[in-house]
Amino acid sequence: MEEAKGVVKHILLARFKDDIPPEKIVELIKGYANLVSLIEPMKAFQWGTDVSAENLHQGFTHVFESTFESVEGVAEYVAHQAHVEFLNLFFPALDKAIIVDYKPTFVKL
Amino acid sequence: MEEAKGVVKHILLARFKDDIPPEKIVELIKGYANLVSLIEPMKAFQWGTDVSAENLHQGFTHVFESTFESVEGVAEYVAHQAHVEFLNLFFPALDKAIIVDYKPTFVKL
Repeated sequence: MEEAKGVVKHILLARFKDDIPPEKIVELIKGYANLVSLIEPMKAFQWGTDVSAENLHQGFTHVFESTFESVEGVAEYVAHQAHVEFLNLFFPALDKAIIVDYKPTFVKL
Repeated sequence: MEEAKGVVKHILLARFKDDIPPEKIVELIKGYANLVSLIEPMKAFQWGTDVSAENLHQGFTHVFESTFESVEGVAEYVAHQAHVEFLNLFFPALDKAIIVDYKPTFVKL
């Protein structure tokens, strides 16, 4: 399956509910990061808070990027028990979320 | 300014209007990629189309990621004449867009 080859970036844009305390957010992000050590196809994880100045963030405050080696790897991650258990803690804390996956094409200069 | 240091990822989630032909989309993406050679603080560019299976993409079909060395670099890019001219072609072709910038924190395992 040609489309299944190559690195896949899994992007989550999120906004936490206003009543979630900062220390709870830190704990949830640590739990997200810890999935890398629990789910084999999840190869890397990075995250950060929005620092944009263009005012086009539509209220999203956090970006999470996970890296996989294939779309099958993402599917294995999504179905993994550790991911499901994490989501049961994480998703109820979110006000909104968007998830997109893409296979990066780099600029050739 | 401590916050201004370090790599900044500039993420655009986009959906093109339904009446924009595929060849026009290709041309616009080439124009976006070409900004790397025109705007010094823009250090890298990658893009791809959504391949997610979780149905949380909220209609977004394209991801564009540009890399800068600082938030000042992003500001210089946003104000750059080449970017402004590109946006005048690109933004009218979009049905919707979200832009977030973040400084990636990596997982330490």
